[in-house]
Amino acid sequence: MSFEPDALQGFVQRYLDTVSGGSADDVAALYAEDATLEDPVGGGEVHIGRQAIAGFYKNVQGAEISTELLSFRAGGTEAAFVFAITVGGAMRIEPIEVMTFNGEGLITSMKAYWGPANITQL
Amino acid sequence: MSFEPDALQGFVQRYLDTVSGGSADDVAALYAEDATLEDPVGGGEVHIGRQAIAGFYKNVQGAEISTELLSFRAGGTEAAFVFAITVGGAMRIEPIEVMTFNGEGLITSMKAYWGPANITQL
Repeated sequence: MSFEPDALQGFVQRYLDTVSGGSADDVAALYAEDATLEDPVGGGEVHIGRQAIAGFYKNVQGAEISTELLSFRAGGTEAAFVFAITVGGAMRIEPIEVMTFNGEGLITSMKAYWGPANITQL
Repeated sequence: MSFEPDALQGFVQRYLDTVSGGSADDVAALYAEDATLEDPVGGGEVHIGRQAIAGFYKNVQGAEISTELLSFRAGGTEAAFVFAITVGGAMRIEPIEVMTFNGEGLITSMKAYWGPANITQL
């Protein structure tokens, strides 16, 4: 199975739009039931399952968030991309993320690579 | 186990320097014995083991290659980065790659995300 690059970019753009404009449950609904999330990679915690993933996004819910896709690469049923996320107009982070998708276009795994060096105070 | 971001960036820079200046066997020696390589992701082929990996790099051996690290993110024992590779002065590709490393700093897995949209004819 494979997706066209444009389809994968659409999934990623929908995800970024939902992170900025939707609720934690809206974002979690883009994940498969048994998906995994590691953000940041190496942070020691992998969130497993849609419920745990909703909990992760609830931590930032309420903050004013904007997102911007900076660079995108497609591969089969996977995507790798650079994006910027601005939180509360105070902090900008530029992670590299890798996502895998199932046949329904739901995210089956997400890994976000970033650290203190990728944070800018605004 | 975890590496400092600078150490991971050093592993990645050594890899890019070896891709441009070393032999296929030199590059393969940076991989663990049982490492895996998927380049491009979604291309349908995963190279398993150092011998198969050396074979992969032999395909480009002989061409004039230069590499440049454009953007780097560290995470635990993993790295994600954007880089440019110029082949024979004729073609420039900008993949996003993800690598995992063992305790000795050898690459245990490499995945390269790129497609036709990321190639520039020079």
